[in-house]
Amino acid sequence: MDFSSFLTSLGTSFFIFVVLMLLFAWLSSKPGNSVIYYPNRILKGLESIEGGSKTRNPFSWIHEALSSSEEDVISISGVDTAVYFVFLSTVLGILVLAGVVLLPVLLPVAVTDDNGKLSANSTTSNGTFGELDKLSMGNIKEKSHRLWAFLIAVYWVSFVTYYLLWKAYNHVSGLRAAALTSPEIKAEQFAVLVRDIPPVPEGQTRKEQVDSYFKTIYPETFYRSMVVTKNKEVNKIWGELEGFKKKLAHAEAVYAESKAKGKPEGERPTNRTGFLGLIGKKVDSIEYYNEKINELIPKLESEQKVTLKEKQQASALIFFTSRATAASAAQTLHARMVDTWTVMDAPESRQLIWNNLTIKFFERQIRQYVVYIVVALTIMFFMIPIGIISAFTTLANLKKYLPFLKPVVNIEAIRTVLEAYLPQIALIVFLAMLPKFLLFLSKTEGIPSESHAIRAASGKYFYFSVFNVFIGVTVGGTLFSTFKTIEKHPNSIVDVLATSLPGSATFFLTYVALKFFVGYGLELSRIVPLIIYHLKRKYLCKTEAELKEAWAPGDLSYGTRVPGDLLIITIVLCYSVIAPIIIPFGVLYFGLGWLILRNQALKVYVPSYESNGRMWPHMHTRIIAALLLFQVTMFGFIGVKKFYYAPILIPLPIMSLIFAFVCRKKFYRFFCSTALEVACRELKETPNMEHIFRSYIPPSLSSEKLDDDQYEDALSQISRSASSV
Amino acid sequence: MDFSSFLTSLGTSFFIFVVLMLLFAWLSSKPGNSVIYYPNRILKGLESIEGGSKTRNPFSWIHEALSSSEEDVISISGVDTAVYFVFLSTVLGILVLAGVVLLPVLLPVAVTDDNGKLSANSTTSNGTFGELDKLSMGNIKEKSHRLWAFLIAVYWVSFVTYYLLWKAYNHVSGLRAAALTSPEIKAEQFAVLVRDIPPVPEGQTRKEQVDSYFKTIYPETFYRSMVVTKNKEVNKIWGELEGFKKKLAHAEAVYAESKAKGKPEGERPTNRTGFLGLIGKKVDSIEYYNEKINELIPKLESEQKVTLKEKQQASALIFFTSRATAASAAQTLHARMVDTWTVMDAPESRQLIWNNLTIKFFERQIRQYVVYIVVALTIMFFMIPIGIISAFTTLANLKKYLPFLKPVVNIEAIRTVLEAYLPQIALIVFLAMLPKFLLFLSKTEGIPSESHAIRAASGKYFYFSVFNVFIGVTVGGTLFSTFKTIEKHPNSIVDVLATSLPGSATFFLTYVALKFFVGYGLELSRIVPLIIYHLKRKYLCKTEAELKEAWAPGDLSYGTRVPGDLLIITIVLCYSVIAPIIIPFGVLYFGLGWLILRNQALKVYVPSYESNGRMWPHMHTRIIAALLLFQVTMFGFIGVKKFYYAPILIPLPIMSLIFAFVCRKKFYRFFCSTALEVACRELKETPNMEHIFRSYIPPSLSSEKLDDDQYEDALSQISRSASSV
Repeated sequence: MDFSSFLTSLGTSFFIFVVLMLLFAWLSSKPGNSVIYYPNRILKGLESIEGGSKTRNPFSWIHEALSSSEEDVISISGVDTAVYFVFLSTVLGILVLAGVVLLPVLLPVAVTDDNGKLSANSTTSNGTFGELDKLSMGNIKEKSHRLWAFLIAVYWVSFVTYYLLWKAYNHVSGLRAAALTSPEIKAEQFAVLVRDIPPVPEGQTRKEQVDSYFKTIYPETFYRSMVVTKNKEVNKIWGELEGFKKKLAHAEAVYAESKAKGKPEGERPTNRTGFLGLIGKKVDSIEYYNEKINELIPKLESEQKVTLKEKQQASALIFFTSRATAASAAQTLHARMVDTWTVMDAPESRQLIWNNLTIKFFERQIRQYVVYIVVALTIMFFMIPIGIISAFTTLANLKKYLPFLKPVVNIEAIRTVLEAYLPQIALIVFLAMLPKFLLFLSKTEGIPSESHAIRAASGKYFYFSVFNVFIGVTVGGTLFSTFKTIEKHPNSIVDVLATSLPGSATFFLTYVALKFFVGYGLELSRIVPLIIYHLKRKYLCKTEAELKEAWAPGDLSYGTRVPGDLLIITIVLCYSVIAPIIIPFGVLYFGLGWLILRNQALKVYVPSYESNGRMWPHMHTRIIAALLLFQVTMFGFIGVKKFYYAPILIPLPIMSLIFAFVCRKKFYRFFCSTALEVACRELKETPNMEHIFRSYIPPSLSSEKLDDDQYEDALSQISRSASSV
Repeated sequence: MDFSSFLTSLGTSFFIFVVLMLLFAWLSSKPGNSVIYYPNRILKGLESIEGGSKTRNPFSWIHEALSSSEEDVISISGVDTAVYFVFLSTVLGILVLAGVVLLPVLLPVAVTDDNGKLSANSTTSNGTFGELDKLSMGNIKEKSHRLWAFLIAVYWVSFVTYYLLWKAYNHVSGLRAAALTSPEIKAEQFAVLVRDIPPVPEGQTRKEQVDSYFKTIYPETFYRSMVVTKNKEVNKIWGELEGFKKKLAHAEAVYAESKAKGKPEGERPTNRTGFLGLIGKKVDSIEYYNEKINELIPKLESEQKVTLKEKQQASALIFFTSRATAASAAQTLHARMVDTWTVMDAPESRQLIWNNLTIKFFERQIRQYVVYIVVALTIMFFMIPIGIISAFTTLANLKKYLPFLKPVVNIEAIRTVLEAYLPQIALIVFLAMLPKFLLFLSKTEGIPSESHAIRAASGKYFYFSVFNVFIGVTVGGTLFSTFKTIEKHPNSIVDVLATSLPGSATFFLTYVALKFFVGYGLELSRIVPLIIYHLKRKYLCKTEAELKEAWAPGDLSYGTRVPGDLLIITIVLCYSVIAPIIIPFGVLYFGLGWLILRNQALKVYVPSYESNGRMWPHMHTRIIAALLLFQVTMFGFIGVKKFYYAPILIPLPIMSLIFAFVCRKKFYRFFCSTALEVACRELKETPNMEHIFRSYIPPSLSSEKLDDDQYEDALSQISRSASSV
């Protein structure tokens, strides 16, 4: 990619961004779209636009985002979202502080030197370096004393990172403490999850076993237990029932509409009973669904009874009347065999993964290691296709290996666009395939809570990204030329990385720009959800519930967002000293990101769980990992320049490791378990334990027909009757 | 060492053993020696000899040891001692089961083969192999199918070890649970130690700070706190005072004796006031010591007040009225900053290391790593002298390098004795120097309890022993001949180890025999303590207290005993298949050890602390480490024999690692913290909390003059008055 195609790419991205912003300003002011642009506010029962005035400035969202406080974010979108903004602003701070010093110092130092070897050496490595190269460290002569400036810059960036990360960890720890201290009653703070319960002794039910065990240990604060059951069957029936209920409502709405429109007696909707409603007998929908529902209700009830009675598993939720007891119980060893009665914090009821609750202790261990191996293999073997793709998708290579494309490619316009976007698009599409697979793997580990599984998947995704995108593209961009070197000297991989870094700088510049202009433009304008919503509204949705489902905004999806951001910060950090011109791009990425996501968090997305900032330690560790990678490559890169003082950089990676160690020791345990000084604060009111208990009953097991008292009795009676069997 | 010198060594050792046994039988029957042979029983207020009959069989101790049950050991010598016997019997079991199969199978297989190369190859490596070599694997031809037997033997030994270790871990875990469940009141079960208390807030005393913190968290079960003070000064004064009191008693006894003997008015003892009582003014002892005591008592009292008032540290002991709360508090995170309010189980009061209680969180971390580095350096650099010693102390080398010794060495008798004992004695003396240093290092780490420090020191000692004695002697025995090989191919260290193992077999046979015959002979007969006691009684001791001190038996000293045993089991395991003839020696070592130490535990040693079997996981892990070393060297050794099926052994080390992992996961946590199901059992009586609290007051701070109530008031008043300052 030469300089002009770089500018083209930048220009195109910016143009798309501006168009999307204008679209957003126009579309968001239409009242009919407010469910797309303000769903979170609507669901919270707030007015869609603050102040509610109709003739508002189309750019007032910027002011609203900037003036919103952290408390607003916490109250509207939860602690996890607030922590995400701490992450964004910390990274932004690092880049701004780095840029303020590096840009005015390093750029003049680089541009006024003139590396004679340049055209003969660095640039030919992949032939894509143009005017930008003058602004980078590649322009410095070997052994030049100007390298001192770059060396000190590495120290500056590192210290800025340490300082801001430390402050941020402290701050996030405070946020978490405030959330856990809050006098609001949160059901999960009163419960623990106990797994690996030993076999039921003769003459006892599971429930009696669990109750008597915990009553002995916590005679005063034990409230009640809920034995985990195998819900596969009952879930299936319940799912079918709910499906038919929705279809019935839909059919009734269609019927009512047809009455209102044409014939006064209406047209009764019909459907076919066979596969996907395409084949089979044609029946009257309303009758058919009513019939099905009436069939399923007793089936569900009997299955509920069978499940509660016979499908009890070796796992339970225990409820305490005190937060402090629950916090302490989750951290304490209960049985002398560590693989029995394992107790942990109960996740929120909405993020419990019921199927994983019954997996046994050592099976969990084995699953974990198997998953680690699978992930490692995935990371290794994806490296090959990515390397090949990025090596192929330079135009020169395309023409060389696929000569039949030559006529198409030689058209100037197509050529420029292709050159600008081809490798980046390949990369983005490629990465979009992965998260689902990694989340699936993480759930397979046996993790009992959704948020934990997402954290685990996001960690895997980060390591995948760094290894494959960053290292793969960097080394892969010069893969064909350097493959023989690596083959001969396998130890020289750091050298290869260091020498090929500058060559990939423009690739990453374009990648970052594409991500923030087009990515954030799409994010803010919500073009895709808007179109889907309007299509659904027009052609599919008939009932209120269907409509609500159509505009349901989903959550911020940290699982993929955070690793993406971390990849950007890794790239920007690694290039920050080599080619400081990347820093403004990074600043724009995180600055725009902060602004646009602030708007989205306040107005659009609805968090689907709350983990009270447990994501932070992972973000923190991974920023340090990025910093380490930066420090090591800088050591290699300055070494390649034959600078004798390069070893002055050696203390830096060691300092990073110590910093990581100290942070982990000082802060981490509080992110795994609740500190008692936090949990022992007083509550606003006496907790309604029955309400807390009930919130953990899965919907498929809570019965509509039985009223509250009956249900409670049923659960207890079943235990009692089971003991008499 | 040739075969005859091996037999000489064995014979001499056995002779010494028999002599010592006879001495024991004779000496132990004399009533005047009962304080040496039955001190534990005497201190426990039991009759010195069971049954008390005077004309007892001199060998009845064997019967008594064999018929004693585990409960006897626990009740007389504590759980730690019982766990030590579990260790001894487990190892004994492993060796017996291994020997039962290996001896009748492998010896015939080895002896009927004839390795033609033997005299030309293996034996010349250090020229010490004789008839014994025929019984070992060295006698098997390369690539011989007979190696299958040895290969299967490795599997047999491994499985026997897994099985018995698993059973033992289960059993020890049960012992620990029983000890912790016991309805007896143990002070340490009601207390926790809290360190790293943050600075005192304005307008509060340390005591108020601690009390209010824990009262908030444990409103119902918090009893009282004891702030840790800096006791250096007060300890010094108290030590001086106690010294003078002893000296006064001694002087009075001397005076009374002189009265009884000669002149009716007696002869008043005198002493000099200067250095060591050798120089300075001559004074009347009784007057002088009385004066000194009267001087020191008010000094001690004022220092006690100053200490309690002004030398409070950021550390405290917290007392709870419930065992379960204390057990749970010790495992739970209290503050959100992990490096403040760190809580752990309180050690027994007698094993608290007061000076270490005040070391800060990160200082402890730093100290730990510094100590690890120092230990690693010690292990590395002691290797050199040991290598040199063992290479020099073969007679051939002595004659070669120190030719002036030739005339002495050529005398047959001297030559044989020297050959037999020289290297072993050098080794034993060498190892005796180390334990104190390692214990000192472990205490420097900042460990707050004596037993933990001893465990840590014993671990260091084990790794030192294995690295230096076992690997050092084995490789060092052929050091001069193989040094050049290692230099050329540094990767061949496993090969070197494997080829040089058979050469050192006889060395270790003699070493083991020396250890059990002479070592255990001395242990049982207690010749050295007996002589010292009688000398002291005759010439030094005048008072009852002095006499009691003279025969105080001390404890079993696991700290050095366990690593010694572990070194033996490492040696025997590693040679068990190569030269199965070592197995009976191992069986004798652990069998005799069990018998003799059972006697000593029941009758002699008084445990100085109780850790409820926390030593076990370390023993367990180290036996597995020995097994791993065995498996790896066997893989190398069978590989050296060019046996194509050697890779069949590869799964074994992996299985050992998995076994260690599973054991650690399943059992280990219970050895670090108390399980609640164990701590929540009911007590025999309501605990006397005041008594529990008082047991933790160090002797230098408990005052004789003030009665109980006053002391309590003093402690509280001080806190109150300090707040008004």
